[in-house]
Amino acid sequence: MHFTSEPETSADGVTQRRFTLDGVPGVLWQPDGPPLDGRPLVLLGHGGGQHKLGPGLVDRARRCVRRHGYAAVALDAPGHGERPRTAQDERFATEIGQLLAAGRPISAWVARHTAALAERAVPEWVAVLDALAERGEGLGPVGYWGLSLGSVIGIPLAAAEPRVAAAVFGLTGHASQTEAAGLVGVPVEFLLQWDDELVPREGALALFGALGSREKTLHANPGGHLDVPELELASSEGFLARHLDAVR
Amino acid sequence: MHFTSEPETSADGVTQRRFTLDGVPGVLWQPDGPPLDGRPLVLLGHGGGQHKLGPGLVDRARRCVRRHGYAAVALDAPGHGERPRTAQDERFATEIGQLLAAGRPISAWVARHTAALAERAVPEWVAVLDALAERGEGLGPVGYWGLSLGSVIGIPLAAAEPRVAAAVFGLTGHASQTEAAGLVGVPVEFLLQWDDELVPREGALALFGALGSREKTLHANPGGHLDVPELELASSEGFLARHLDAVR
Repeated sequence: MHFTSEPETSADGVTQRRFTLDGVPGVLWQPDGPPLDGRPLVLLGHGGGQHKLGPGLVDRARRCVRRHGYAAVALDAPGHGERPRTAQDERFATEIGQLLAAGRPISAWVARHTAALAERAVPEWVAVLDALAERGEGLGPVGYWGLSLGSVIGIPLAAAEPRVAAAVFGLTGHASQTEAAGLVGVPVEFLLQWDDELVPREGALALFGALGSREKTLHANPGGHLDVPELELASSEGFLARHLDAVR
Repeated sequence: MHFTSEPETSADGVTQRRFTLDGVPGVLWQPDGPPLDGRPLVLLGHGGGQHKLGPGLVDRARRCVRRHGYAAVALDAPGHGERPRTAQDERFATEIGQLLAAGRPISAWVARHTAALAERAVPEWVAVLDALAERGEGLGPVGYWGLSLGSVIGIPLAAAEPRVAAAVFGLTGHASQTEAAGLVGVPVEFLLQWDDELVPREGALALFGALGSREKTLHANPGGHLDVPELELASSEGFLARHLDAVR
């Protein structure tokens, strides 16, 4: 893990540092001061077409630090942000616009492409957890927060990585995710948009049903893929904090 | 409205009085002291087989008064609590046990019986609002909280009664409720139990979808009809309070 920027600390005591790990660019947010033993860490997965420093994500990271005293980390997903796009990524970016414009169903096609991204992204997140532990950051319980592409990556990550103790998922749902969902055992809050133009409602409901977690809760609201109410986003942060503080 | 008991005030300042209105027995909870202009009122609808003084309901009523300074009121639904049972009520109570024991589907049959109860109960709730207003209780915005039978009655009530400003519904869902649901326009939080043995999941989801409210939110959790998590019940009270305080 190579830090590629000096730590910048804002007036409210949030320190932000960029890093790369095996070529994957990321950002780490921490409370100003030395690492604290057992401090919770929130992994923030961005949505499709977004990146590690998108405005909503940065706000969320800063709230994790400021309100809860946690650390937070974000990575550019494969083909996103500062990372090179493969020919397949380029084709995807072009074709999704064409399919949407033509009113064609895209969910199976998106699921196939994003599943390939997730296969690359899951070991990248695991490597970040290993690297932070090696640096003696004294990591406590880990939470994952990510919707849409953030869930396509987060669900197999939570299935494979025992350090993840609670997760917020949503805005996704395809049969190809069922098997990984069944292996998730930690508390999950799942957000669904009732009129999601990108994710069929039945697929999202089935994915929630498939989650292996004994404790899981579905919150559904009217509106499209990008219309998740602010209050729901705040509630999901409260959900994560409740579980991370409980196992701290 | 005839009060049939002296006001009893508990140490924490919650006054409880029983009343009858046109033969319907009810209970009114208020903060100790004179009526306050614009004080919100929460109508508490009990579930099937329950009554106006069931333990969960009384706890909820007392929290409305103590935490929020609201008034709360409960009525015995037709055929419940202190009210006489008709021959049809008796038949229903006997047959539901037999059908459940035989593993037969009951949802259409329950819907038919409870719809008949709702037809009687809706004007009873309207009469209570009129009577409290006439007594100069200075009523502010009205919230409705009721699951299962409480929603079978509450949905047509909220559809017909413009004084209801926000509602918590759930644990119900049958095609016979669709029309009334479409006439509900106020903010609704709808609770669904994923493994509800009495209410088919598809019916509950369809009923949520049918609600005419622009602002509505569905919260679903694993478990059966009686397993709604405590946290979800508390959250639903917060939902009502947020909306009643906003329009106060």
